[in-house]
Amino acid sequence: MAKKPELDDFRVPFFDQGRKGASFKLSDFDAGAKPFSSGSKESDRERLLELGTKLDAQQERLHAQRLQRVLLVLQGMDTSGKDGTIRAVFHEVDPLGLRIVPFKAPTPVEAAHDFLWRVHAQAPAAGELTIFNRSHYEDVLVPVVLGQLSKAQRERRYRHIRDFEAMLADNGTTIIKCMLHISNDEQRERLQARIDDPTKHWKFDLSDLDARKLWDKYQDAYSDALAATSTDYAPWYVIPANSKSHRNVMIAELLVRKMESLKLEFPPPKESLQGVIVE
Amino acid sequence: MAKKPELDDFRVPFFDQGRKGASFKLSDFDAGAKPFSSGSKESDRERLLELGTKLDAQQERLHAQRLQRVLLVLQGMDTSGKDGTIRAVFHEVDPLGLRIVPFKAPTPVEAAHDFLWRVHAQAPAAGELTIFNRSHYEDVLVPVVLGQLSKAQRERRYRHIRDFEAMLADNGTTIIKCMLHISNDEQRERLQARIDDPTKHWKFDLSDLDARKLWDKYQDAYSDALAATSTDYAPWYVIPANSKSHRNVMIAELLVRKMESLKLEFPPPKESLQGVIVE
Repeated sequence: MAKKPELDDFRVPFFDQGRKGASFKLSDFDAGAKPFSSGSKESDRERLLELGTKLDAQQERLHAQRLQRVLLVLQGMDTSGKDGTIRAVFHEVDPLGLRIVPFKAPTPVEAAHDFLWRVHAQAPAAGELTIFNRSHYEDVLVPVVLGQLSKAQRERRYRHIRDFEAMLADNGTTIIKCMLHISNDEQRERLQARIDDPTKHWKFDLSDLDARKLWDKYQDAYSDALAATSTDYAPWYVIPANSKSHRNVMIAELLVRKMESLKLEFPPPKESLQGVIVE
Repeated sequence: MAKKPELDDFRVPFFDQGRKGASFKLSDFDAGAKPFSSGSKESDRERLLELGTKLDAQQERLHAQRLQRVLLVLQGMDTSGKDGTIRAVFHEVDPLGLRIVPFKAPTPVEAAHDFLWRVHAQAPAAGELTIFNRSHYEDVLVPVVLGQLSKAQRERRYRHIRDFEAMLADNGTTIIKCMLHISNDEQRERLQARIDDPTKHWKFDLSDLDARKLWDKYQDAYSDALAATSTDYAPWYVIPANSKSHRNVMIAELLVRKMESLKLEFPPPKESLQGVIVE
């Protein structure tokens, strides 16, 4: 009988000064795998509803307690399903307790600062569950692929990211980073589907195909960046994402486990309210 | 046969320099009424799901078009159901397209600015549906009830609000303001229920009862503020809210109608994508 899959099997090995990233390649993971799928789309949907309800319960405690912070970072190539993940995984979660931050190409003001400046401003507050839809990781991907960063500059940015995330973690932020991993073929199909549906054209620009032409370079840049920034305080997980229902279940499972491990509790009753009668 | 209720019957008469607010009193509205309820909680739930799906479709168009902005302002006494409204009415809406802004007591930095400063910073961007959970209206309620504003200062703030909202509207923002109207008895029951459930104590502080002691003054302050700031470009609606299912259906109905009236459409197909084959 096959070994039951563990989330940790999909965790990128922790960065280690000595043999940094030597063993990690994104391509070692099968984007089409469905290890956390329960077999059918229908049962995955049921499972997702169940996990969504648990996630909502955890988020309510997080919000009530107002002590800890949770940050989910979503990265992935175009069409890998970042938007779809947010919609599906958080459907049962109270929108009051969620903050979703999309990072686009930097504005002139943002670009005039260091690359972590706009990111720091959006870090979760106590009691918040914040989702980064793209993130500071774009700044060690796009400029790397376009050859705008030397190896030394890249390594320095990796270090800045590790230090920044360590500081957030030291201040009570649980950081979970997910790489939505799709195959080249899957991306082709998804892009083609968008082009073939004129009502979806607004999501799309011809220049979006430029990044696809650099697919291999992006995969390498991702492999390198993930290896250099997966840490015990901010681990990266590779999410096989050709199957949308698998992707959703796996991310929900990961979040629920992480949040349950925080042992979040409602604050204790207040003695001052004992027996009070409202007039 | 009774006349079918119209949303406009619950709209606060528009401010008019001459006979300002003379005719409007919050107490003229029955907080226990259920004019938009379909009869049973069960059918209200079905209706809400239907409206939620329509709201989601409208929000997607708003987001795709990225031209207009929608701002929903929620006000009401403690326990009137602002949080519950957000959770229930927006359950079907993609969290990607929502931004929820809670306004708490001003921080020292916020208090060091004019009262619209922190509000302006949170105004919806093009394509956004933004919900204010409390708002700049707190600044013409709390200080009025506590006697910290003279009548002249109050009138000046009303004018600043009208001018500010006119500017937002002129720049493509649809503003909808809802007063969640509950009765004094209903508030008593809801507060007592919170006190009687120790797991809810974190939502509650003994000082929350102070505002209740000033119930009549708050009702008067609301009546005055609503009358002075209901305009054709930013109307106030009184939402009978003793019944939660009625409150949800009425607000959803209002939002769907307003958004449908904007005639939001997906942007047209792009010629540049015609017949493109992804490689």
